Amino acid sequence: MPILYDNPVSRNGYKARLLASHLGLSLQVVSKDLRAGESRQADFLAKNAAGKVPVLELEDGTCLPESNAIVLFLAEGSALLPVDTLERAQVLRWMFFEQSQLLPNIGLARMLKLTGRDAQRPDVYAQRIEAGQDALAALDRHLAGNDWAALGRFTVADIVLYAYASVAEVAGFDMAAYPAVVAWRRRVEALPAHIASDWGFAA
Amino acid sequence: MPILYDNPVSRNGYKARLLASHLGLSLQVVSKDLRAGESRQADFLAKNAAGKVPVLELEDGTCLPESNAIVLFLAEGSALLPVDTLERAQVLRWMFFEQSQLLPNIGLARMLKLTGRDAQRPDVYAQRIEAGQDALAALDRHLAGNDWAALGRFTVADIVLYAYASVAEVAGFDMAAYPAVVAWRRRVEALPAHIASDWGFAA
Repeated sequence: MPILYDNPVSRNGYKARLLASHLGLSLQVVSKDLRAGESRQADFLAKNAAGKVPVLELEDGTCLPESNAIVLFLAEGSALLPVDTLERAQVLRWMFFEQSQLLPNIGLARMLKLTGRDAQRPDVYAQRIEAGQDALAALDRHLAGNDWAALGRFTVADIVLYAYASVAEVAGFDMAAYPAVVAWRRRVEALPAHIASDWGFAA
Repeated sequence: MPILYDNPVSRNGYKARLLASHLGLSLQVVSKDLRAGESRQADFLAKNAAGKVPVLELEDGTCLPESNAIVLFLAEGSALLPVDTLERAQVLRWMFFEQSQLLPNIGLARMLKLTGRDAQRPDVYAQRIEAGQDALAALDRHLAGNDWAALGRFTVADIVLYAYASVAEVAGFDMAAYPAVVAWRRRVEALPAHIASDWGFAA
């Protein structure tokens, strides 16, 4: 069984756990204590030079870091990842949008909030909120005319976008400005295989 | 011929131009004036809800935003993008690393520098430098033992990583700390099809 090195607080790790629920996959989840620096130790840096969870370790010892690469690898051959080149390109488009525009802003704003550092670095926090608002507005414009992110059906693009869109309030965003995102989150949450978090963390 | 909506200053657009040079592809490059807000007008928002270049428009009118999705779409079937699922996963891993850890930090630091706003928002600039140093250190650890990013050969992962790694000095990074990245950049630049920028911009 593949090992997922992860941490309960990681929304990137949650992407793999949510996908596993949708596909009925079994993963052995191994928690790394990030505050104790476990992801920065030499044995873990050998698995991921970036020193971050999640990392997927296959049975032959091959290690695959980066949440969206893990999701694409695990979803290969399933109904959540299209085979058609142009359809797949639209899925990838939203997965790259998530990584460059949604995650860095909601993710860092959330981490500053959760650790109480938003007051220590107010302009850093403010800039992440500004840029995150731009990203949420873009997603909202798109979802105003589309039930799902990439195609006319639920795909892995929805899974990875949901991971950070669903903790925007915790990070300090007012979601009243993004009604199409809020309605889409409800559609994701209404799917039978949905899990808020398999480790019981709300945020 | 596909249209690439782009801007000379865009390193994300440069990824598609560099790939086109390596593959001998023809693209009709159409420049959008970002300072005049052309990427935020309704006609362009219909092509990309995020209001950003690059966007690839196919002959049937289909629009594909996000530089890395464009690169993957154009490279499909070429030697720069492996077919094997696990090899492709390693390519995608570095492309997602680029989007989440390299681009947001080097990219915003560079934009603040180029527009003279680094002095107006010193803590925002400093935080992007800190996080960018982490990303460059991770890439350096990996490239210390590997000639190319994802596999034992040049792939699209090298193309997309190079786009921002090659402007790190402009953004304010001291590259003396990352000798493996510097050596890898020289390997990329030594390839026969390499272009610094087809629009003649150094930075």
